[in-house]
Amino acid sequence: MTEFELIRKYFQGKPTPSWCTLGIGDDAALIQPPAGRELALCSDTLIEGRHFPVRTAPADIGWKALAVNLSDLAAMGAQPLGFLLNLSLPQADEAFVAGLADGLFELAAQHDVALIGGDTTRGPLSISITAFGHVAAGQALRRDGAKPGDVIVVAGELGAAALALQQGADAPPALRAYLDRPQPQLACGQALAGVAHAAVDVSDGFAADLGHVLKASGCGALIELEALPLAPALRALPPGEAQTLALHGGDDYALVATLAPAAWASLQGRHAGLCAVGQIQHEGGLVGRDGQGKLNPVPLTGYSHF
Amino acid sequence: MTEFELIRKYFQGKPTPSWCTLGIGDDAALIQPPAGRELALCSDTLIEGRHFPVRTAPADIGWKALAVNLSDLAAMGAQPLGFLLNLSLPQADEAFVAGLADGLFELAAQHDVALIGGDTTRGPLSISITAFGHVAAGQALRRDGAKPGDVIVVAGELGAAALALQQGADAPPALRAYLDRPQPQLACGQALAGVAHAAVDVSDGFAADLGHVLKASGCGALIELEALPLAPALRALPPGEAQTLALHGGDDYALVATLAPAAWASLQGRHAGLCAVGQIQHEGGLVGRDGQGKLNPVPLTGYSHF
Repeated sequence: MTEFELIRKYFQGKPTPSWCTLGIGDDAALIQPPAGRELALCSDTLIEGRHFPVRTAPADIGWKALAVNLSDLAAMGAQPLGFLLNLSLPQADEAFVAGLADGLFELAAQHDVALIGGDTTRGPLSISITAFGHVAAGQALRRDGAKPGDVIVVAGELGAAALALQQGADAPPALRAYLDRPQPQLACGQALAGVAHAAVDVSDGFAADLGHVLKASGCGALIELEALPLAPALRALPPGEAQTLALHGGDDYALVATLAPAAWASLQGRHAGLCAVGQIQHEGGLVGRDGQGKLNPVPLTGYSHF
Repeated sequence: MTEFELIRKYFQGKPTPSWCTLGIGDDAALIQPPAGRELALCSDTLIEGRHFPVRTAPADIGWKALAVNLSDLAAMGAQPLGFLLNLSLPQADEAFVAGLADGLFELAAQHDVALIGGDTTRGPLSISITAFGHVAAGQALRRDGAKPGDVIVVAGELGAAALALQQGADAPPALRAYLDRPQPQLACGQALAGVAHAAVDVSDGFAADLGHVLKASGCGALIELEALPLAPALRALPPGEAQTLALHGGDDYALVATLAPAAWASLQGRHAGLCAVGQIQHEGGLVGRDGQGKLNPVPLTGYSHF
């Protein structure tokens, strides 16, 4: 099957949403974004052996490639519209493409996002997705708006993807799903748009990604270590080990946001998925407080691609 | 140098255009597209050894990765705004990134397009760019609008990139530039927007890409073989060989458009870069007419990535 036939069979022919005036199959796609909104655009590449283990099921690769991009839109508070898919394949392997399309469109359907374009080529296995969505002008969640006194909140659970990666083939399916099928926190992100001062999604690790907010905003943070929303699978581990995974493990695709205490008080009851884990401070650096009230610096390390 | 440091040094810190309310460095970029225009989005991946020869100069890789995407926007008649860059590198090689950034930004500056986001990761060398631009609503150049009787015009020259690829390291620099530094036909594309019935850019080869227009539009075409705008380097070749390169060689990034004879008559004098090469016909297939008036079918073959 040629490149064109593969694309046609698995990626074309889906209904085109009304905001998309020209979908897959031309030199470019055409969209009419909603009037008066800003358009958020992001793009992430997944490489075999680096962003997903070799022999990951094709459907999981498809899911994850879209999920990490939707997570970036969630971290902006944006409502996703669609995406472009650039697929590099070692060979025109129909079973692989069919599986990948399955996982990809399963997540796309859950969030009503449409594939509108992209590219397929032969090369080492990698997938780049460019996703876009919209947000009210001026209300997007940037990284540089955190203010001393802000409550730090997390949407989602921490540490399970890193634990699944550690356990490799031995990870039970429910744990493995955290790594292979992360759920982008779109609803929480949208609830935080125009409300929170700053947000980031947790891809490199909680400490590293919160660190990006602290650096961009020029402030520090105190984290209540016992308040971190550990994934259930971590609760059986020794507390130190669980905390290390939650603080420094990557691939969680949780959101971390900072907002004024009053805004948090009014949001708190209405969003079960959010929990407060600390406070933004004037001083630089990240400090963790344990259950005994003891303070310790937390290194801003996470996963580095180089 | 880490991923973050490389990105910061070579890709951040450029001025952000007014339509971009948030550039590189957050989870997503934010743009405010011009009101009342459609947004055109396209994305192409370049892989070493497939889309550019191994040992291509990094600056040429950077140029070409952007050029092929701007060529897609040209084929829509769009005015480019910006792009996202996804770079996969075998190692954090500063000299390579510096060279790549040089070529990329040289072309970007020529067309006033801004880098607003993307991703850098470790992996086999590949570059995905997602470019976007705007076009008056309803005036974009699609592939499916060609009509019998339309004049077929070409902007740019044909065959030289394929000849350079054939000659490899022996290609003189001026010829090699056709392969490494294609010039997207943005001005011609914009002049054709709202005027031409259909357009496509020549990436896989003139016959193959015109074939996409014929298929999408449900018609055929007669090409005057002697009217094809051969690149100067092809004029020294035996005519048959030159025509084969012009018809079936890839990587030209010329534009092929079809427009009503009256529209062509009024445009003809004003755009020196355009030349008429044939006519759209009712019957399917592509037919070439040589200097003696002899008709021969032209296969719709070009470069296939699989």
